[in-house]
Amino acid sequence: MLEKFFSKETSYLRTSEIRDLLKLTEGRDVISLAGGLPDPQTFPVEEIKKIVNDILTNYYDRALQYSTTAGIFEFRKELVNLSRLRGISNISEKNIFVTVGSQEALFMLFNILVDPGDEVIVEAPTYLAALNVMRTRRPNFNSINVNDNGPDLDELEKKVREKVSDGKKIKLIYVIPTAQNPAGTTMNLDNRKRLLEIASKYDFLVVEDDAYGFLVFEGDSPPAIKALDKEGRVIYTGTFSKILTPGLRLGWVVAHEDVIRELELYKQNIDLHTPSLSQFIAMEAIRRGVIQNNLPKIRRIYKEKRNVMLEAIQEYFPKDARWSKPIGGMFVFAWLPEKIDTTKMLEKALQKGVAYVPGSSFYADYSGKNTMRLNFSYPSKEQLVEGIKRLGETIKQELNV
Amino acid sequence: MLEKFFSKETSYLRTSEIRDLLKLTEGRDVISLAGGLPDPQTFPVEEIKKIVNDILTNYYDRALQYSTTAGIFEFRKELVNLSRLRGISNISEKNIFVTVGSQEALFMLFNILVDPGDEVIVEAPTYLAALNVMRTRRPNFNSINVNDNGPDLDELEKKVREKVSDGKKIKLIYVIPTAQNPAGTTMNLDNRKRLLEIASKYDFLVVEDDAYGFLVFEGDSPPAIKALDKEGRVIYTGTFSKILTPGLRLGWVVAHEDVIRELELYKQNIDLHTPSLSQFIAMEAIRRGVIQNNLPKIRRIYKEKRNVMLEAIQEYFPKDARWSKPIGGMFVFAWLPEKIDTTKMLEKALQKGVAYVPGSSFYADYSGKNTMRLNFSYPSKEQLVEGIKRLGETIKQELNV
Repeated sequence: MLEKFFSKETSYLRTSEIRDLLKLTEGRDVISLAGGLPDPQTFPVEEIKKIVNDILTNYYDRALQYSTTAGIFEFRKELVNLSRLRGISNISEKNIFVTVGSQEALFMLFNILVDPGDEVIVEAPTYLAALNVMRTRRPNFNSINVNDNGPDLDELEKKVREKVSDGKKIKLIYVIPTAQNPAGTTMNLDNRKRLLEIASKYDFLVVEDDAYGFLVFEGDSPPAIKALDKEGRVIYTGTFSKILTPGLRLGWVVAHEDVIRELELYKQNIDLHTPSLSQFIAMEAIRRGVIQNNLPKIRRIYKEKRNVMLEAIQEYFPKDARWSKPIGGMFVFAWLPEKIDTTKMLEKALQKGVAYVPGSSFYADYSGKNTMRLNFSYPSKEQLVEGIKRLGETIKQELNV
Repeated sequence: MLEKFFSKETSYLRTSEIRDLLKLTEGRDVISLAGGLPDPQTFPVEEIKKIVNDILTNYYDRALQYSTTAGIFEFRKELVNLSRLRGISNISEKNIFVTVGSQEALFMLFNILVDPGDEVIVEAPTYLAALNVMRTRRPNFNSINVNDNGPDLDELEKKVREKVSDGKKIKLIYVIPTAQNPAGTTMNLDNRKRLLEIASKYDFLVVEDDAYGFLVFEGDSPPAIKALDKEGRVIYTGTFSKILTPGLRLGWVVAHEDVIRELELYKQNIDLHTPSLSQFIAMEAIRRGVIQNNLPKIRRIYKEKRNVMLEAIQEYFPKDARWSKPIGGMFVFAWLPEKIDTTKMLEKALQKGVAYVPGSSFYADYSGKNTMRLNFSYPSKEQLVEGIKRLGETIKQELNV
């Protein structure tokens, strides 16, 4: 009835068919491998309870009051310390900006950086919520395939050279270098250096989404690309959703002061500031070492669950499927035989009692029809085995159609 | 250095000179009448402490986890109850949408509703942060003067008729009917009805900002315009910043389901959802009657402070100044002799040790050069008297230049 009043510019906001399908699972006996939720076992709830009590006893007048747009000063100081764990040094609180989850950081960054028609580079596949924000800016997408070491840098350099020889300018690359969502791959140090060299040579920005940088459970986590940045070219986003709890909705940006200033002006329009209480809880959690001390437990839980999922896939998936073996994060990505369209197969999987996210949502050009993303962080180990079993049966039936 | 990378579309985001001036007050002996902060005395901190402890004991797994974009279901149920206190009935949780403060509601609404060139109606003066968001949409502003009973509805109807006879269509009016920020006026029931009749006759939307609807401390608060709405034409925004605490960053929208659906799709891009912990705190605060029982105390504190400010103004301001006598809210608005430019005078006031917001920021056309907004909710009574005394001296000196 009210449609006639809605902006033409936001008409891109349509309901997603996949979300509609997944809504059908609510209240039914469906094992969801489609989500991206952390395991509540990983929440340090007793420590948080103590922290909140201390905050409301000692400085409730600040914790419940309005605060500054860029983030509470002492919290930004602690974020300088936390970022150091990802190898990022030589920054001060002036390079830090606090957001409502890293989603708000991505929303703001792509809005202040990308104009319609701008050339942007994304991984194929890449994080779908980042793609969704970028799409609203109507850029020209350049997709780079992800291999075992992250984005294919030969392909990247070739693409960039082509664009440049066409007189085009690249604006930015959006990259998830560690435990990539959804592909599960991690760039090694050499590739990180090389990516930054290419960005420097052709003068474009690097938006580095480090959502899983603290969640590497096998081997060491390579330093953030931002740690290698001497030119202020890299804009880093981090999140508390995976290392503390998502319900506080806290993310942060590390960037050149010019970027911080733009973010500040934009966020005043969006929501004035990030909730003060959430910020103080996370600040105390860093200061008291709660986050740092809890990371080994989170990594152990997710490593065990990844192992359970990979073993189940090995047992129940057809032999000609491939899948990632992530060293961190929350997801396994699977490439099924080309014959299968995972979007079409979803309804059958739901009938069998298992949900996943069809992979095409993670491609700027909606390719990857035969791929799917599988979450191992939230379901119990029993659900992981049973879910993969149901999924394997669905796939095998689909292959025999 | 990085300016070349920034979007042309967000170049409107410039630093405000006034904010730069006010930043100079930090750490100096300046009494600020420029803010809009609630008095921390009004925060029910012991009750909140108990609530958080109960939440983290009984359902931490939900309170710290991701939640749904529109808002937590049980919280939306309680918001139906809270909205009833403003006379709004015949709605369900499907008409409720939870936001990061009411600022996010305004940001989203003006983005989904307003296209460049659209005709919008605003009060003169009106809330500056709403104006700032609207400006980014580049509409055509139609300003309606505010008198003792809210916007001048004769002027409104005349303006609308002119536009219609020019073949134009009005998209919406943005209105703060109760204890208006900054003008301090409140629309009576008849005017609310008449405004809605005009909106219905000429088929435009009413965006009703009810930030101070619960904060009327003299006489009864008239029902929200939304309470009179039978056509789904009114979009209502409320906030917890003034009735619980601002640091939780909680606001809500009451609207037709079509609007809620658009908001949901947009918010998925912005920040996925409003912090779960904040929502559960406010939910329990409604459920346990904490908010309802605390309102009389808030009203008493603000009524006393308003009285102190009005008495001081009466004593120290020049006789040919006028000012509002608000029956609620947090602000007094003053019209000084035309000779005075309050933006130019601000630096002198700061030197005398008092800050205010120059009124022109509250006018879409930056008129109102001789006006200023004065906050009485946050400073102590002693500060209110001393601040107004310093301001009176500044004004009198300025008049004698």
